[in-house]
Amino acid sequence: MLITTRRRTLLSLVAVAATPAHRVLAADEVLPSWHDGPARQAIVRFVQETTDRSSPRFVAEAERIATFDQDGTLWVEHPMYSQVIYCLDRVPAVVRARPELAKVEPFKTVLSGDRAALAKLSMHDLETILAATLTGMSVDDFAAEARKWLGSARDQRWRRPFTDLTYLPMIELLGYLRANGYKTYIVTGGGQDFVRLYAEQTYGIPPEQVVGTAGAVSYRYAKDGRPFLFKEPKLLLNDDDAGKVEGIHLMIGRRPRLAFGNSVGDRQMLEYTKAGDGARLPLLLLHDDAKREYAYGPAQGLPASKVGTFTQALYDEAMKQGWIVVSMKNDWERVFAFEP
Amino acid sequence: MLITTRRRTLLSLVAVAATPAHRVLAADEVLPSWHDGPARQAIVRFVQETTDRSSPRFVAEAERIATFDQDGTLWVEHPMYSQVIYCLDRVPAVVRARPELAKVEPFKTVLSGDRAALAKLSMHDLETILAATLTGMSVDDFAAEARKWLGSARDQRWRRPFTDLTYLPMIELLGYLRANGYKTYIVTGGGQDFVRLYAEQTYGIPPEQVVGTAGAVSYRYAKDGRPFLFKEPKLLLNDDDAGKVEGIHLMIGRRPRLAFGNSVGDRQMLEYTKAGDGARLPLLLLHDDAKREYAYGPAQGLPASKVGTFTQALYDEAMKQGWIVVSMKNDWERVFAFEP
Repeated sequence: MLITTRRRTLLSLVAVAATPAHRVLAADEVLPSWHDGPARQAIVRFVQETTDRSSPRFVAEAERIATFDQDGTLWVEHPMYSQVIYCLDRVPAVVRARPELAKVEPFKTVLSGDRAALAKLSMHDLETILAATLTGMSVDDFAAEARKWLGSARDQRWRRPFTDLTYLPMIELLGYLRANGYKTYIVTGGGQDFVRLYAEQTYGIPPEQVVGTAGAVSYRYAKDGRPFLFKEPKLLLNDDDAGKVEGIHLMIGRRPRLAFGNSVGDRQMLEYTKAGDGARLPLLLLHDDAKREYAYGPAQGLPASKVGTFTQALYDEAMKQGWIVVSMKNDWERVFAFEP
Repeated sequence: MLITTRRRTLLSLVAVAATPAHRVLAADEVLPSWHDGPARQAIVRFVQETTDRSSPRFVAEAERIATFDQDGTLWVEHPMYSQVIYCLDRVPAVVRARPELAKVEPFKTVLSGDRAALAKLSMHDLETILAATLTGMSVDDFAAEARKWLGSARDQRWRRPFTDLTYLPMIELLGYLRANGYKTYIVTGGGQDFVRLYAEQTYGIPPEQVVGTAGAVSYRYAKDGRPFLFKEPKLLLNDDDAGKVEGIHLMIGRRPRLAFGNSVGDRQMLEYTKAGDGARLPLLLLHDDAKREYAYGPAQGLPASKVGTFTQALYDEAMKQGWIVVSMKNDWERVFAFEP
């Protein structure tokens, strides 16, 4: 029995590797962490139809673009985006290099460690911290610092590296789409340079398929004449809200066939995806699982959150437009790979 | 004999399709339009070494990024960039929609058809024409107009569609690299939205692998509520000179292993490519074939040109840095697919 199961797993792996990308796997081979509810069924039906040459909803392989928000869609965003935690963690080092900042807000508040005061920082304060910790250095120096942090930092609840806090059902979905000829992209309000550092290892998504908020870089020369790229404190693309669609046009140049988000910042991406001709699948993840993850968002009468706002208006639009709302609580059998 | 040749061609096609991407084709199967000189040898050696797992110069498949300038590298740029010809051809339509422009420079000069006056237009004049003909409309309307032009316009010398004026040896090189696991990109000073319209059909390069000069787009709604993207008269990325490296960082996020250009606008891209660790191959195409194409560029004592400037300084740098200079005259057996 054990041998049979092993053999079957091995065979299905071989099948994924050897068959043409448009060959759909049998239903019981895919998305094992999803309950067999309406969301999973909609996904499987979409993939089967768009990869079946005889279907009127068939999509040529070159057109198979799937875009995913990251924070709150592929991994945990609550109670704070991990990149913001990174920036806050970097403040002491920035102040060591520029001691005059110690007495200047918002750095003073961050250094105080006063959580109540931290929670009250304005968006402008946050932008000041992001600019000070993410720019004004070479791309290589930034990458080295951020990689070090990603390797050592732990979240407060599970005490695990942030890259462990990815949703297993979403990892399965990314793989299922790729096995069916879809090119999977991250389209995130997070920093493009930051997300690219771990997206390949964490999600199997290469740097060139990460679209994110991007600052300008400038081409400079080191003292030894070697060229390098320097991160300028200048915003080039704010990849959120309508900026997500603009980023998709800039970096992909095709309208997605499938888009997956979880907040108002994803609204335009889903709307734009749905407005295209032929088969399109917009999906929204609802955080309604206080036990296994978090529950937030007024659509379910749950408290609003500073991150990942899923408003009643967004929920109403999803219903009206026929977007698929995925319930973490009801649609996912497992949430994390590290949990049984 | 005929059957044997056919069979061999068929078998080699099957071999390309069925073998793993890192399998190098036999030397006589690849780059048939290249003479067996130092340039071809350098390319074949580079591909063999970077795809051979036992070589110290092996490059993992995910890292195999090759970037190509377009104008003057993949197709003819002389005597005028085809996109500039498109913009000049569009001026009458723009003036019909906005008659007040008929008496305003530089539109007045363009409408006059006076070639001598046209040749004297300043860079600022040209930018005014580009802004008026490439922006202020939806992305879809632009694409429809440009596609129509690409289907009907003919160049002055060969009387062929511009998309016929691609260099056969370069098309072969793109295919050879892709058969060996390289992802091929266009990195052009030309307009990203323009080049994406024909790059897939002409070069086998999909829209998401075209990096070019890009204007901002804005997300808008039509009267029927349908969202669309509008081309704003605002430059987002000037993808030339150092801007090519900045564009590569923004849209690819990896340093190329191979970069191919033909002018001073490609200098930084080649320099940045070469400055990376491990195997890197920078190449420059020299237009020294007045008979089959054009000869221009002071490096060969040839007259300077308004397009594709290949200066003595660039030539000297290529020699000093060990970049490969490809001579159209000496390295290419055939230039165009339409010629015998």
